[in-house]
Amino acid sequence: MQKSRLETFSDGVFAIAITLLVLNIRIPQTDYEHLLPTLLAAWPQLLGYVMSFVIVSVYWVSHHNLFHLIRKVDHPSIWMNLLLLLFIGFIPFPTALMGQFPFKQMPVIIYCSTLLATNLIGFICWKYAANGHRLIDPNVSRATIRRIDFSFFIVNLFYLLAIGVSFFSPAASYVVLGLNTLLIILRKPAIEV
Amino acid sequence: MQKSRLETFSDGVFAIAITLLVLNIRIPQTDYEHLLPTLLAAWPQLLGYVMSFVIVSVYWVSHHNLFHLIRKVDHPSIWMNLLLLLFIGFIPFPTALMGQFPFKQMPVIIYCSTLLATNLIGFICWKYAANGHRLIDPNVSRATIRRIDFSFFIVNLFYLLAIGVSFFSPAASYVVLGLNTLLIILRKPAIEV
Amino acid sequence: MQKSRLETFSDGVFAIAITLLVLNIRIPQTDYEHLLPTLLAAWPQLLGYVMSFVIVSVYWVSHHNLFHLIRKVDHPSIWMNLLLLLFIGFIPFPTALMGQFPFKQMPVIIYCSTLLATNLIGFICWKYAANGHRLIDPNVSRATIRRIDFSFFIVNLFYLLAIGVSFFSPAASYVVLGLNTLLIILRKPAIEV
Amino acid sequence: MQKSRLETFSDGVFAIAITLLVLNIRIPQTDYEHLLPTLLAAWPQLLGYVMSFVIVSVYWVSHHNLFHLIRKVDHPSIWMNLLLLLFIGFIPFPTALMGQFPFKQMPVIIYCSTLLATNLIGFICWKYAANGHRLIDPNVSRATIRRIDFSFFIVNLFYLLAIGVSFFSPAASYVVLGLNTLLIILRKPAIEV
Repeated sequence: MQKSRLETFSDGVFAIAITLLVLNIRIPQTDYEHLLPTLLAAWPQLLGYVMSFVIVSVYWVSHHNLFHLIRKVDHPSIWMNLLLLLFIGFIPFPTALMGQFPFKQMPVIIYCSTLLATNLIGFICWKYAANGHRLIDPNVSRATIRRIDFSFFIVNLFYLLAIGVSFFSPAASYVVLGLNTLLIILRKPAIEV
Repeated sequence: MQKSRLETFSDGVFAIAITLLVLNIRIPQTDYEHLLPTLLAAWPQLLGYVMSFVIVSVYWVSHHNLFHLIRKVDHPSIWMNLLLLLFIGFIPFPTALMGQFPFKQMPVIIYCSTLLATNLIGFICWKYAANGHRLIDPNVSRATIRRIDFSFFIVNLFYLLAIGVSFFSPAASYVVLGLNTLLIILRKPAIEV
Repeated sequence: MQKSRLETFSDGVFAIAITLLVLNIRIPQTDYEHLLPTLLAAWPQLLGYVMSFVIVSVYWVSHHNLFHLIRKVDHPSIWMNLLLLLFIGFIPFPTALMGQFPFKQMPVIIYCSTLLATNLIGFICWKYAANGHRLIDPNVSRATIRRIDFSFFIVNLFYLLAIGVSFFSPAASYVVLGLNTLLIILRKPAIEV
Repeated sequence: MQKSRLETFSDGVFAIAITLLVLNIRIPQTDYEHLLPTLLAAWPQLLGYVMSFVIVSVYWVSHHNLFHLIRKVDHPSIWMNLLLLLFIGFIPFPTALMGQFPFKQMPVIIYCSTLLATNLIGFICWKYAANGHRLIDPNVSRATIRRIDFSFFIVNLFYLLAIGVSFFSPAASYVVLGLNTLLIILRKPAIEV
C-alpha cells in the first residue's frame, strides 16, 4: 500500500512539473502588427517546452517501469525517490533559462547537468532497490538488471556528450539531447511491462 | 494495472492544464474608479477561460470514454498518449494569446490548429488501439468503432471550418467553435459507458 | 468505475485550485527597511487566501459527501459536474481581485456571485441526481434529501445576504461570509459518512 | 473509503505545493554577459527551493506514516486536516520571501513560524486521532504514541530554536533548520510502516 501512495505522489509531481512547463512560454507585450515576428522569435521557448515535456515523460515512463519491478519501499528508498522528485520539479527552471537564452552554452550546461543529476539519482535509487533484490521482485533476472543498468549508463553518456559538445556548439547539444530522447522512445524498452 | 497508472497520470495533466487556465485572466493594474471598465474590457479573457475549460473537458470526457474500451496499453500507445498530453498541456498558451488579441485572425488560427492537432493525435491513438482490436475489448462492435471514427471526423471538420471562416471573420470562428462544443455535449455520445 | 474517475478528476481540480490561491499573495518589490509595513499592508490578500481556501474546502467536503450517496453517473451529470469545476477553477480570480481592492463593493459582489453560482450549480447537480433517486442510493431517505436541500438553501441565503449588505458596508459582507463558513464547519453535517 | 479520498486530496495539495516552489526561482531580466553573476546571486532562492522541498517532503512522509495508523476519519478530523493543508499550501509564500531577502531576520521568523504552526496543527490532528484510540488502530501501543508525541515535540523545539537564534544571526537559523531536517531524514522513524 505504501508503494502505491509513493507512486501516486510521484505521479502528481511528474504531472504538475510537466504541465507547469507551458507557463515558461511567454511572449513580450506587443501590438497585433508585430505579433507574427514576436511569435516566430519565441520558437526556442516552444522547442524547450517540447523537449522538456518529452524528457520528463521519459523519466515518468522509466519511473513507472521500474516501480513495476518493485515489491516494497523502505525509509531510504522513499527519501531517494523524493530527492529524484526534487530534481524533476526543478526542470522547469533550466527549461525557462534555455528558452530565454537559446543556443547559449551556460543554459545548455545547466539543463544537461540537471538531467544528468536526475538520472544519476534515478540510478542510485535503482541500484539500492536491485542490490541483492532488496526491494524488487525476486524473479527479476540478472540479465534484466544488467539491461536496466546499461540503459542508465547510455543515457548518462549522452548527457555528458551533450555537455561536451556545448563547448564547440551549444546547438549541437540540442541535437544530442533530441537524438537521445528519440532513441529512448524508439528502442525496445529494457523491461516490457 | 499499467493502464490505470497511465489513466491517472493523464487525468492529472488534464486537471492541471484546465485549472491553470484561470492564471490567464489578468487585468491590468488600475485604481478602483476604473475597475469596472477594466473588468468589462477583460471579457474576451473570460470567454477564453470558459471556452478552453469546456474544450479540455470535452477531450477529458472523450479520453475517459475511449479508455473504457481499452483493455491494455503497450509501449507505442503510451507514447502516443503522452504526445496527446503534450498538446493538452499546451492549450493554455493559445488561450492566453486569444485573450490578449481578441477576435484577431492569427490567434484564432493558432488556437484552432492546436485543437485540430490534439484531435488528430487522439484519432491516431484511437486507430492504433482499435485496429484489429489491438488494445480494445474484443467485444467492441464494428458499428461502435465506425461511430467513434465519425465523431473524430466531424470534430476535425468543425476545426477546419473554424480556421476557414477566420479568413472572413475571426468572430465567426468563435461561433463555430462554440457550436461544435455544444453539439459534442448535447448529442448522444458515440459510446455510452 | 466511471464514478471513481470523475471523483478523482474533481479532486484534482479542487486540489489545484486551492493550492494556486497562494500565488495571489504577492507583495510589491520593496527594500528590507520597508518590508514590515509592506507585509502588514498585504493582510487583505492573506485574508483572501484563508477565506477562499476554507470555502473551496467546504465545496470539496460537500462534493465528497454527496458523491458518497451517488451510485452511478450519466452523461448529463458528468457535464454538470464539469460546469461546477469550471466555477471552482475560477475562484482564484475573484479572490485575487478582492485582495487587490480590499473592502470595496465590486470585488465583493463578484466574489459572492461566483460562490452563489457555484452553489447553485451544485444544487442543480444534486437535484438531478436525487430526483426519483435517479443516481443516488435507493436507501437515501426523503428526510436526508430534504436536509441536503435545506443546506444548499441556507448557504445561498447567506451569499445573497453578503451581496445585500455590501451596498451598506463591504466589510460586513466579509463577516457574513466568515459566519456562513464557520456555521458550515461547526454544524452537524446533513449527511454523516 | 472516505479515509482514502482525504489521503488522495492531501497528496494532491502536497504534490502541487511542492512543485509550485520552482516558480519562486526567478532571475531578473539580464543579458547573456551578466547571466553567470545573476545566477550565482540567485543561490538563496535555490537554497530556499531545496529547503522547502525537503521540509514539505518531511511533512508528507509524516502525514503518510500517521495515516497508516488511522482506521477512520470523522468530521472534526477532516477539518483539522484541511487546516493543515492550508498551512502546507501557504509554504511557497514565506519561501519566496526568504529567497527575496536572504539571511534577513523577518523572513526567517515568518518562515519558521509557518513551519511551527504547520507542525502544531499536525500535532493537534494527531492527538485528536490518538486520544483514547479515537481514530487510530486499537493495536497501536502506548509506546508508539509516546514516540510520535516526542517527535513532534523535538521538531517544534528546533523551530523555536531557529526563531531564537535569528535574533543573533539569521544565517544560524538556516543551519538549525537544515540540521533538524537532516535529523528527521536520518533517524530511525518513530513508526516503521
